[in-house]
Amino acid sequence: MSSVIGYYTTKYGEIWNKSLFDLVEEVMIGVLKTTHIEKEQIDAIFFGNMLAGVLENNLHASAKISEILGVHIPVFRVEAACASGGIAFHLAHQYLASHKDETVLVVGAEKMNDYPVETITDALMAASSGEEQEAGLTFPGLYALLANTYMETFHYTEENLAYVAFKNHYHGSLNEKAQYQKQILLETILKSPYVADPLKVLDCSPISDGASAVILSSSSSLIKKNKNTTRVLATEVATDTISLKNRKSLLELAATRIASEKAFSKTKLKRKNIKVAEIHDCFTIAELFAMEDLGFWKKGEAGKRIKELSTMLGSNSDLIVNTSGGLKAAGHPIGATGIKQIGEIYLQITNQAEKRQIKHCQYGLAHNVGGSGGTAVVTILGS
Amino acid sequence: MSSVIGYYTTKYGEIWNKSLFDLVEEVMIGVLKTTHIEKEQIDAIFFGNMLAGVLENNLHASAKISEILGVHIPVFRVEAACASGGIAFHLAHQYLASHKDETVLVVGAEKMNDYPVETITDALMAASSGEEQEAGLTFPGLYALLANTYMETFHYTEENLAYVAFKNHYHGSLNEKAQYQKQILLETILKSPYVADPLKVLDCSPISDGASAVILSSSSSLIKKNKNTTRVLATEVATDTISLKNRKSLLELAATRIASEKAFSKTKLKRKNIKVAEIHDCFTIAELFAMEDLGFWKKGEAGKRIKELSTMLGSNSDLIVNTSGGLKAAGHPIGATGIKQIGEIYLQITNQAEKRQIKHCQYGLAHNVGGSGGTAVVTILGS
Repeated sequence: MSSVIGYYTTKYGEIWNKSLFDLVEEVMIGVLKTTHIEKEQIDAIFFGNMLAGVLENNLHASAKISEILGVHIPVFRVEAACASGGIAFHLAHQYLASHKDETVLVVGAEKMNDYPVETITDALMAASSGEEQEAGLTFPGLYALLANTYMETFHYTEENLAYVAFKNHYHGSLNEKAQYQKQILLETILKSPYVADPLKVLDCSPISDGASAVILSSSSSLIKKNKNTTRVLATEVATDTISLKNRKSLLELAATRIASEKAFSKTKLKRKNIKVAEIHDCFTIAELFAMEDLGFWKKGEAGKRIKELSTMLGSNSDLIVNTSGGLKAAGHPIGATGIKQIGEIYLQITNQAEKRQIKHCQYGLAHNVGGSGGTAVVTILGS
Repeated sequence: MSSVIGYYTTKYGEIWNKSLFDLVEEVMIGVLKTTHIEKEQIDAIFFGNMLAGVLENNLHASAKISEILGVHIPVFRVEAACASGGIAFHLAHQYLASHKDETVLVVGAEKMNDYPVETITDALMAASSGEEQEAGLTFPGLYALLANTYMETFHYTEENLAYVAFKNHYHGSLNEKAQYQKQILLETILKSPYVADPLKVLDCSPISDGASAVILSSSSSLIKKNKNTTRVLATEVATDTISLKNRKSLLELAATRIASEKAFSKTKLKRKNIKVAEIHDCFTIAELFAMEDLGFWKKGEAGKRIKELSTMLGSNSDLIVNTSGGLKAAGHPIGATGIKQIGEIYLQITNQAEKRQIKHCQYGLAHNVGGSGGTAVVTILGS
């Protein structure tokens, strides 16, 4: 059984004075310092990144990271589009299952703002099918197809989507590492310009630079030595078709549902045991889907339930969602997101979430999605 | 303990009528048929590929593979430049260490010939440092620096390098899956035009399309059912600086040496127990380095020893190297190479190597390198 024993993240946003590997160096050094661990105590490194190859002909991160830290240990770069961070964490946990008494660094990073938005929009389409690329679709376009199907089927309007952004921007205002730290009024969200009908600018997560890192350990002495630790109770992965047109249903992300069922079945926890969740809200509609696919709310119910704002900090409900601000307000540096989600749950469970702290938080869940749902990772942490 | 229970590869070469994922589909279906395993028996897939993102904006392979096979199981794409295949195999083996009674597919693939050679040369430089890219270096250039250092230090000439190509092209002539199946005279190699002095065209591995797959299992019943299986005795990874200028020595690839020491120490085998090895001969000089760094020959000796042709099929020596033809003659579709190396060792140990078969082959070694030595994987298989 491995435990998260430390977390460090850069602020997310537009970071003009650092390269991708400057950010990687910052969080590796940062998390080692925070946890008082020497680099010699690290046995392997898992690294999640999506776009450095496409954007800047920058691959072979294993050797680049080896050079930065001055180590010869195994370094593994994994890529699963926007789930790259979650997959890196998953494989690190698998690795420790057969490496007792070892400790690994898990790092995610992305550098996006050095390129024009059109370049980024095209590059992100690498996570979709060739056919969807050729059809001129974009990720806002793909999620707009899902949003329209959902809204038509269950009779919702754009207002139902907007509540997700409203809540998550409020949470972002409490997180000094968030890209956007300002509350946004519901009417501002509803008046923002369309990107892909029905999704507006303020339904979309931004383009972000940033890196995040956690230390994961199976060493009982190291876990005991650190006062802030939380166990990994489950981390499960499922996949689905790359193309939306080949899905059985456009009213769910099946990969999320399958990964979630596996994770809850492994931990034997009930949904109501989860007090805090970081959910993959790349677009507002994605949080509504996820609340249903993860099993927190019934299918078709999310549009209504979100308006109660029961998942917002300050509510007395059982479950608060995206206290970091989510991808929507905290930002979405692709490869880093999955690590930041786990880091936020770690902060909550170990009582380090400051202004965003939830009371009596024993169990939390992180949910990371690749593309339009082709990959999903569901991780449950608990003390 | 996991075992390789099946292997399938496309012919390597110029494959104009298939896309990257056509090749992936061919080897996945091929290896399942060969081993009489249904896709429902596969618990996870590990996929090694380097360049699809850079060349054709093609990422998120997990979902693409999920769609091809019609499964929802975890699929993991890993990238470590030219060691992507070896790393995929390594992580698959790690995965099975904590998943008893499971079976995984390990696939490697690359599609390179659809692009001009200049594009490929630039794209491959993603595996080097930014500084080396900006200096206008290429991979032939980087390995030429190593070759010149080696030749100067130990007083060798280009003829010493040429023997590697001579031997491996002879082996390729016996392998119907090889890109080049023709013997080449030593004088032809020596008269071929320079790419980067002292490396000539016939010192370099070619640009190749291809895919390869193995099935790896920890299920004792499945292993028992298959008559052709071999155990994974060790698979070890080490890393080194991305930049040549930051290495302590230019007379070795330290990552190979470290990974090899770890692998032999884990298996408790001696070098002389290894009867067959597939070695990362991206350039002729790379095989000479590897023979020394793996511990088969003493430092500085390889230039002389290669001229004895003791590692060529037909010799009575203890160790035959690159019976597949190596990267040099069999071809080097980047992500596939590490899998093909393991597949060739599997064929040898299970007596299926036909015209290339070595007698009494109990143990074999595969050696896969990323970039100019920033990553190395050493895998030892045995019956």
